[in-house]
Amino acid sequence: MKAKIAIDVMGGDHGPVVTLAAAAQFLRVHPSVTLLLVGDETLVRSQMSAHGLVEGEHIQVVHAPEVVEMAESPAVALRTKKKSSMRVAVDCVRDGSAQAAVSAGNTGALMATAKFVLKTLPGIERPAICTALPSRKGHTHVLDLGANVECNADHLFQFAVMGSVLVEAYDDNPAPRVGLLNVGAESIKGNDTVKAASALLENGPINYIGFVEGDDIYKGDVDVVVCDGFVGNVALKTSEGLAKMITQFLREEFGRGLLSKLAAVLALPVLKRLKNRLDPGRYNGASFLGLQGIVIKSHGGADVSAFASALGVALREIEKDVPRRIDQRLGQLLNEKETA
Amino acid sequence: MKAKIAIDVMGGDHGPVVTLAAAAQFLRVHPSVTLLLVGDETLVRSQMSAHGLVEGEHIQVVHAPEVVEMAESPAVALRTKKKSSMRVAVDCVRDGSAQAAVSAGNTGALMATAKFVLKTLPGIERPAICTALPSRKGHTHVLDLGANVECNADHLFQFAVMGSVLVEAYDDNPAPRVGLLNVGAESIKGNDTVKAASALLENGPINYIGFVEGDDIYKGDVDVVVCDGFVGNVALKTSEGLAKMITQFLREEFGRGLLSKLAAVLALPVLKRLKNRLDPGRYNGASFLGLQGIVIKSHGGADVSAFASALGVALREIEKDVPRRIDQRLGQLLNEKETA
Repeated sequence: MKAKIAIDVMGGDHGPVVTLAAAAQFLRVHPSVTLLLVGDETLVRSQMSAHGLVEGEHIQVVHAPEVVEMAESPAVALRTKKKSSMRVAVDCVRDGSAQAAVSAGNTGALMATAKFVLKTLPGIERPAICTALPSRKGHTHVLDLGANVECNADHLFQFAVMGSVLVEAYDDNPAPRVGLLNVGAESIKGNDTVKAASALLENGPINYIGFVEGDDIYKGDVDVVVCDGFVGNVALKTSEGLAKMITQFLREEFGRGLLSKLAAVLALPVLKRLKNRLDPGRYNGASFLGLQGIVIKSHGGADVSAFASALGVALREIEKDVPRRIDQRLGQLLNEKETA
Repeated sequence: MKAKIAIDVMGGDHGPVVTLAAAAQFLRVHPSVTLLLVGDETLVRSQMSAHGLVEGEHIQVVHAPEVVEMAESPAVALRTKKKSSMRVAVDCVRDGSAQAAVSAGNTGALMATAKFVLKTLPGIERPAICTALPSRKGHTHVLDLGANVECNADHLFQFAVMGSVLVEAYDDNPAPRVGLLNVGAESIKGNDTVKAASALLENGPINYIGFVEGDDIYKGDVDVVVCDGFVGNVALKTSEGLAKMITQFLREEFGRGLLSKLAAVLALPVLKRLKNRLDPGRYNGASFLGLQGIVIKSHGGADVSAFASALGVALREIEKDVPRRIDQRLGQLLNEKETA
């Protein structure tokens, strides 16, 4: 089976300038993949040649005259923009012309569209958003990052199972260590929801290691960190804010005085390597888990390399057949429940 | 009135080695303050001279034979350790022999003790933990950091008022900008609790600027960030973890190859300045707000300078009469409620 990925060309802060360039960059590395470029066909066709993209076996243009705005209400977008590039890209996954859709557009609208068009897997009440963050020893997957601001213990349990299956497949890790985010590692800590979720996970079908704390995300001793979307979103954005502040402080301090500037020149390769290790672009591409199909959300402000990373996440999930694997694991759980 | 601070000498990961050295360092800068050294008197007396501490007008030893362990259950500590250095330090605030207590001990036990011994201010259901974090333009106070893992809208409203009053006094800021932590700045975002709290704050007696996101903690455009203790604890610990990881990456990258090591030598003053700007020790000293008295929690692993910073926070809150100011503001609100 050849992988086909539908790209919402118009989505994100930069639109075609970034998405088409990223498509071209991605195809040079993965020449066997087919990319469906979804957007206004006149506009897409007029801009694609500048990126060396030529229609054919590996490049198809799919017409979608409308665009979902970044600040648009998800409900309104879903109801009124049935011909948007975002919606048509997800439609391509439903009708089988692509196995994954990638968009840098409005997160809420993309989630609403994905749920409506693709539907959730049997037994899944809430899809979750999952991404990898760098850690001292590699990376850590965290979910949910904002799809569900209120969760009960069953939801957290499902997130844990979905996150584990994703990492099993994605990182070829037979038993990812799954932790539940809490305010302390002791079992008496936390609110009722995490305590109840922990009790469920103790008897769950995954390698549950218990409660973890915020700093564990970056330590590298846990592979999947599970939390509700409110907490996950705060953790993610707090991290982004701190990383930006540290970068600014570094720039300011290296710009202070001649000696510091000299040091900066010498330290440049070091700082570049540091930036590369921390680069959120490398980890760009959040998975919507729990759907009957693959949908990957790119950061709205992603640059060309970052958007290409999101396409890479989509390809890996296609190759590893992630939704089917999640469906199988959940099916086992549902069967066990029914026979219990 | 001369400021008197009771120090839990035995608390924290390092105990007297740090707390006594910090007491000496603090007294050199603030010679008019009186410090009550609370701990096993034989032990305290045997160690204080090594730090140049001599009993007299500014140094008093208060005997407390027991110690609350870092991992001890707060309920057990409260019930069984009535002669602990932590408990006796807080007792000193209640009986007026000190105006503030500072401890690097077990957070849960300190909060339980403070609530039991000092009681909350009229109208306050839950005390909160508040600390300053560095921001691009100065610092940002965040609360609650973990005292209350489940909060309703009224609790968040009270945290906002208490945080505002603290910053008004502490930073001589007549109208601190207070934001409510959420997953998006738009009013439709978030869970029911933050939406209800926001509605209360719109009509509140403080400079409420609406919802803020995790990255706003570090931007410097908000002075007080309000959230429940679960979210605040995750934000704080996630930040600690990320900062440690970046520090480790910097060390690793500067140690890679001869040129990098050379650059490191030149960059050393720059990195030291960076470290100083980010140093959590500078911001050590979390306030327990909403009590009838001042209690400051130092980080358990604080070094001498960091513990001295916590003593500085205590002194500033004494000088600014923070609990009385909070009481007055809350009293106004209660009166308004009753007459409404």
